[in-house]
Amino acid sequence: MTSAPSTLEDCRRLDAQDPLRPLRDLFSLPEGVIYLDGNSLGVMPKAAPARIAQVVAQEWGVGLIRSWNEARWFDLPQRLGDQVAQLVGAALGEVVCTDSTSVNLYKVLFAAIAMQKKDSRRRVVVSERSNFPTDLYIAASLCREHALELRLVDDPSGIPAALGPDVAVLMLTHVNYRTGAMHDMAALTRQAHEAGAIAVWDLCHSVGAVPVDLNGAQADFAIGCGYKYLNGGPGAPAFAWVHARHASDWQQPLAGWWGHAAPFEFTPDYRPAPGVARYLCGTQPILSLTGLECGLAGFGAAQALGGMAALRAKSLALTDAFIALVEQRCPERFALVTPREHAQRGSQVCLRMADAGQQFGGPAYAIVQALIARGVIGDFRAGDSPQAAPGRSQAASLPSGDGLGVPGPGGTRMPDILRFGFTPLYIGFEDVWNAVGNLAQVLEEEEWRRPEFNTRNAVT
Amino acid sequence: MTSAPSTLEDCRRLDAQDPLRPLRDLFSLPEGVIYLDGNSLGVMPKAAPARIAQVVAQEWGVGLIRSWNEARWFDLPQRLGDQVAQLVGAALGEVVCTDSTSVNLYKVLFAAIAMQKKDSRRRVVVSERSNFPTDLYIAASLCREHALELRLVDDPSGIPAALGPDVAVLMLTHVNYRTGAMHDMAALTRQAHEAGAIAVWDLCHSVGAVPVDLNGAQADFAIGCGYKYLNGGPGAPAFAWVHARHASDWQQPLAGWWGHAAPFEFTPDYRPAPGVARYLCGTQPILSLTGLECGLAGFGAAQALGGMAALRAKSLALTDAFIALVEQRCPERFALVTPREHAQRGSQVCLRMADAGQQFGGPAYAIVQALIARGVIGDFRAGDSPQAAPGRSQAASLPSGDGLGVPGPGGTRMPDILRFGFTPLYIGFEDVWNAVGNLAQVLEEEEWRRPEFNTRNAVT
Repeated sequence: MTSAPSTLEDCRRLDAQDPLRPLRDLFSLPEGVIYLDGNSLGVMPKAAPARIAQVVAQEWGVGLIRSWNEARWFDLPQRLGDQVAQLVGAALGEVVCTDSTSVNLYKVLFAAIAMQKKDSRRRVVVSERSNFPTDLYIAASLCREHALELRLVDDPSGIPAALGPDVAVLMLTHVNYRTGAMHDMAALTRQAHEAGAIAVWDLCHSVGAVPVDLNGAQADFAIGCGYKYLNGGPGAPAFAWVHARHASDWQQPLAGWWGHAAPFEFTPDYRPAPGVARYLCGTQPILSLTGLECGLAGFGAAQALGGMAALRAKSLALTDAFIALVEQRCPERFALVTPREHAQRGSQVCLRMADAGQQFGGPAYAIVQALIARGVIGDFRAGDSPQAAPGRSQAASLPSGDGLGVPGPGGTRMPDILRFGFTPLYIGFEDVWNAVGNLAQVLEEEEWRRPEFNTRNAVT
Repeated sequence: MTSAPSTLEDCRRLDAQDPLRPLRDLFSLPEGVIYLDGNSLGVMPKAAPARIAQVVAQEWGVGLIRSWNEARWFDLPQRLGDQVAQLVGAALGEVVCTDSTSVNLYKVLFAAIAMQKKDSRRRVVVSERSNFPTDLYIAASLCREHALELRLVDDPSGIPAALGPDVAVLMLTHVNYRTGAMHDMAALTRQAHEAGAIAVWDLCHSVGAVPVDLNGAQADFAIGCGYKYLNGGPGAPAFAWVHARHASDWQQPLAGWWGHAAPFEFTPDYRPAPGVARYLCGTQPILSLTGLECGLAGFGAAQALGGMAALRAKSLALTDAFIALVEQRCPERFALVTPREHAQRGSQVCLRMADAGQQFGGPAYAIVQALIARGVIGDFRAGDSPQAAPGRSQAASLPSGDGLGVPGPGGTRMPDILRFGFTPLYIGFEDVWNAVGNLAQVLEEEEWRRPEFNTRNAVT
């Protein structure tokens, strides 16, 4: 995969040469759909219906309570965690699959804050204002409870300067959900450690999409999502990781019985399990964990074809191709929000309308709806409203940079964006060609002006 | 249903007269199994495989991200919550189905503690030492974090005396998991309120099994389990309720995006949803929620046949029959742990070996294993070990009573128990007859002495 394709034939040739192409056959891609939303909900592995039916009808229906032992439901969070570990540079036994990302973030951030309590100068949690909102909400809740300050940085370049001696925790999402920009995890973790801070990483938009090396980066805590690039099904359980050096000195606030060293002794006193098992809390949702089991099987198959390195190479080729074709076929209509530099790019491409004056209430939402009607499924993320922007700007503690926000009256604003995710397990180059072709047609025919594309749904 | 049956014919007659008998056909009862463990994991509704397959293959496989709107995944926690509300005396819109019981208990107990913080004298959370361990672990975690004392009562009769002016919260499980004893929710809530305390109820062993009237009792907070009597499948999500009078004055520590007033506005600041929706945190496990949807459908069918009142009448007749037949057919081998009084009994019967000297390392575990080998599935719960008992006794802040513990050297101990759950939706009187018949044979033939029944599994 050298230069970006510029014709349908180029794309077909790239698909024919793609060593990962056989993996596409493991997934159920709906007829007539080009699915560029795997960064929101991954597609269904073809093996999922039969495996889930087996768990329902046999393990639940016939095995009943006996399946905790006989079907090994009991250690499913750890067994799946071991599979996730191989995707994120963690060791076996360091990851569990459980609960939601929000709940897991509460656990790890609580643990990180508790570890820093001995140093009363460290009263700040640093994150990015453009972080996924649930991360900010959970952090704000814990900061309020522990009388800490949540310091939000407007632009990634400002993070090092924010890491003062007052910082307890640096909490970042590795790949930004709005922009597709990827942080240098090793460098930022090192900077955090040099400042005496603990580094907590959210891998929701990176696990399964880009190589991650948690132990290589010497990160402290991490959590991530099971239903995006891992294809675990709607609301599949998330995962949590902690570095082995902290294994004995962190607290689990959600100290439930599944994290007990001996849950079936039913002792009145909590005795935390050694290692990451203490991140378990209550009984886990086995049907949804089974969906995750099916999703993770795709990465087992990918391992034989080059694993995460091969997936990453394809992901970059796909996003390069999408960027080049958008610039070729929709000239001057969009600005690229996602970084061009490979080292800073995740597995999605985000566009905003090139005319910054159109950013609020402009056609971005309707364009996404018109694409969906054509079977090209990406998604839309709203920017700041003009009303909200000034308040946001006043609260900023560091200046904004380029690329992620749009300067305007009242400060830098987040623009409305069109978001396209490229899951290298199952997306091909012809998909990219067809997606851009549809995008060009929506613009040329001004299809997005139709009233039906301008009505908002509950979930967008 | 008047007097307890004493013959197989009596049991068959009671089944023939049972107005709820058609409900049994809604459930998949494995061949050759008498399932008296529905208080641990309920059986599979026959409709579950097809409905879950539809969600997997159609809603996930084809609908993909569109199903958040089109299949109404988005408000599934609230829609199922409205069904649970009808079983527990709550109003529509007051219950959500989400997360695990342990996570939900953390939320409600955190909220209750936060509400009491304005009164610095209230530094105690009262509960029972025999409460389900995860409740005690979560309470201990929050007490440690908020510098409160966890005061554990050894016997229910001691609860009123424990409700001093220093008590912030009374946290009880309505039906005890070990003994099947049921509290008077209305009376204890009233006593808690008279003492200025907030009443938090765990309904894990009551929802779907006994009538509950949260609003009638003026309770403050409640949580409960989806996979026991509600038949929602292994690890099905739990539920949380808050009384309407607190709707605007409680905090959600797990302040995730699904509890935001407008989650898809992606604003950096958390604005809690009005009402119980703020108890949502992260994206919910849709496959496991679908299992719960199937389980709850059984209660829709029961509604036409008398609902919870009819289920309660049958449950008491079943447990009466079991007690009478055990006393008739296994005389003097067992002592009854579960109260005889209907008003104090849940939907399970617990037995201990009558010879108290046999309580530790006695045959209770092996008897349960021998029964399982015969297809009669109940379960075993270990008592205190003799080593653990003295420490436990010293920590007791109130004296023990009769019935729940066994006096011995070093204080009152919890005995090993045999536990049998009777789910009135699908258990019949002939099942009771056959279960007791097998129990009598296991004893008569000393089957429990076989080595294979004396090896412990990971999960018992």
